[in-house]
Amino acid sequence: MAVAVDAMGGDRAPSAIVEGAVRATKEFGLKVILVGDESILKKELDRFSFPKELLRLYHAGQVVGMDESPSEALRKKPKSSIRVAFNLVRKGEASAVVSAGNSGATLACAMVTVGRICGVRPAIATVMPTLKNPVVLIDVGANVDCKPHHLLQFGIMGAAFSKEAIGNKRPRVGLLSIGEENTKGNQQVKKAFDLLSKSSLNFVGNVEGRDVFKGDVDVVVCDGFVGNVSLKLSEGLAESILLMLKKEIQQSSIITKIGYLLARSAFKRFRRLIDYSEYGGAPLLGIKGIGIICHGRSGPSAICNAVRVANTLVKADFVKHLESRMQQEVSLASVAL
Amino acid sequence: MAVAVDAMGGDRAPSAIVEGAVRATKEFGLKVILVGDESILKKELDRFSFPKELLRLYHAGQVVGMDESPSEALRKKPKSSIRVAFNLVRKGEASAVVSAGNSGATLACAMVTVGRICGVRPAIATVMPTLKNPVVLIDVGANVDCKPHHLLQFGIMGAAFSKEAIGNKRPRVGLLSIGEENTKGNQQVKKAFDLLSKSSLNFVGNVEGRDVFKGDVDVVVCDGFVGNVSLKLSEGLAESILLMLKKEIQQSSIITKIGYLLARSAFKRFRRLIDYSEYGGAPLLGIKGIGIICHGRSGPSAICNAVRVANTLVKADFVKHLESRMQQEVSLASVAL
Repeated sequence: MAVAVDAMGGDRAPSAIVEGAVRATKEFGLKVILVGDESILKKELDRFSFPKELLRLYHAGQVVGMDESPSEALRKKPKSSIRVAFNLVRKGEASAVVSAGNSGATLACAMVTVGRICGVRPAIATVMPTLKNPVVLIDVGANVDCKPHHLLQFGIMGAAFSKEAIGNKRPRVGLLSIGEENTKGNQQVKKAFDLLSKSSLNFVGNVEGRDVFKGDVDVVVCDGFVGNVSLKLSEGLAESILLMLKKEIQQSSIITKIGYLLARSAFKRFRRLIDYSEYGGAPLLGIKGIGIICHGRSGPSAICNAVRVANTLVKADFVKHLESRMQQEVSLASVAL
Repeated sequence: MAVAVDAMGGDRAPSAIVEGAVRATKEFGLKVILVGDESILKKELDRFSFPKELLRLYHAGQVVGMDESPSEALRKKPKSSIRVAFNLVRKGEASAVVSAGNSGATLACAMVTVGRICGVRPAIATVMPTLKNPVVLIDVGANVDCKPHHLLQFGIMGAAFSKEAIGNKRPRVGLLSIGEENTKGNQQVKKAFDLLSKSSLNFVGNVEGRDVFKGDVDVVVCDGFVGNVSLKLSEGLAESILLMLKKEIQQSSIITKIGYLLARSAFKRFRRLIDYSEYGGAPLLGIKGIGIICHGRSGPSAICNAVRVANTLVKADFVKHLESRMQQEVSLASVAL
């Protein structure tokens, strides 16, 4: 079944989104439905040659702006591209949704169309580069006020994603805190530590901010406020570090500048390595469907990667897998609730 | 009056601490009291020549370990170097304390010796490099569970520090959140937004993680959990980015490697720029005295800088200044309480 791509969402929509979708058909042979204004999308598609049987258009006359309030978008734009995309999943015409648009609206549309897995707070996970394997950070913004048992749910969902999408057989799950000992953290985190310890997850204890990028843990659990701040801080710092380095080079001697020019290929690879907008997007976990939220700045390769990840999750029957995993923890969750 | 330096605290104590204190006497002509085991410190001092009238030793027979519980340290080690250092301030024999030791114990010792400014939750601030001026992040770990009015207090203290230590006449204060609009954030942050808006601070609204390093705001307010995670995440990421870059270079062609060697001076400067342990330490604000908490890994230059910052705050009569500033906001705080 095809992946529905919200062609109108994102800073570089529709052009970069269409190009990414086209790439997914060509590079991975995946089926895609481009959702958005048909006349605009037809023109965009004219730029490319691609296997016609793998890509079709589905008209949606409205677009949710990047800064629009999710609740307003729900009320006033029933025909928005993101809403229509999730409707395709609900009707069984698409298997998953990829969107680089308004992430709050994406979450809201998912909730009212496909709904959530019983008793679960849907969360947004993101994959970050580290010195070793990539790490899954969950939640990065769907839930800004959490109870401890929500953090347990995030751990379960993050581990399931790490297993199915990244291939970690028994993902190591850590809890983001301010010290390694179980006595460290705020009230919420200390209680979540207990719940995670009692779960059947491969829980490795608290993880400090400085350890996230070492790559010794596969899933890092936190509430959506802390996660969103952490994610954006990391993006901002990575960007600023590159700018500081550039400034240092510019203020240097001619020899240093020549050196930099010679070393530039390594810098370019490095830059791509730490550029989050290059990654395949953040899965929205806990809904009864597959949704991938891409960075607003996503370019074609990010969209293409997101379609690939969505397809991987569909093939792994991720939602069913997660539902049964949640069932296994139900006794614990009921204690916590 | 002299600055009391806890000579026994920190990963590189006492050697690097003694060297840093000696530098402060030589480079800035500041008076220092080195607090710790007298026989050990005497030997350390033998390595240096310095103006004898500016430096004296004060014996303290106990040391608080880096991982020791602050409450146990208080109970069992009344003669620890950090406790004795704060006692010197209480007795009026020293004007400030600098320590690279156990930060929890430093906070606890400050509370039981000099005490806190009436009604205030002491907080730890830290100075981070940005693309423009350094930014003050407060709180980075003293208060993991906060009420909204504590965040207001952090804003007042951070602004006072930014003014006196960094020289910003009317510091721009931002609130760390997940979006710029006042509707973004968790419950705590949304309420703090209201309080900060009504205060007489130069409040510029919410600041996202990605904007912290741009340098367009002078003070960033957050609770101690979020702040500590943010600080350690930044440290970890900066370190990992350097390692990733190194790896890219190592895997490169010989031309690239030569280029890197030529550009290395710029890298060294850059590395120092983003190395937090080089900075002058984190002021403990809200206590009735001056305390500077240095990074555990602090070397001589960090300690020397911290002594200089402590002296600046003493000369500016920082505590009195802060007390009267808190008084001005008292009507607001009483509403909030």
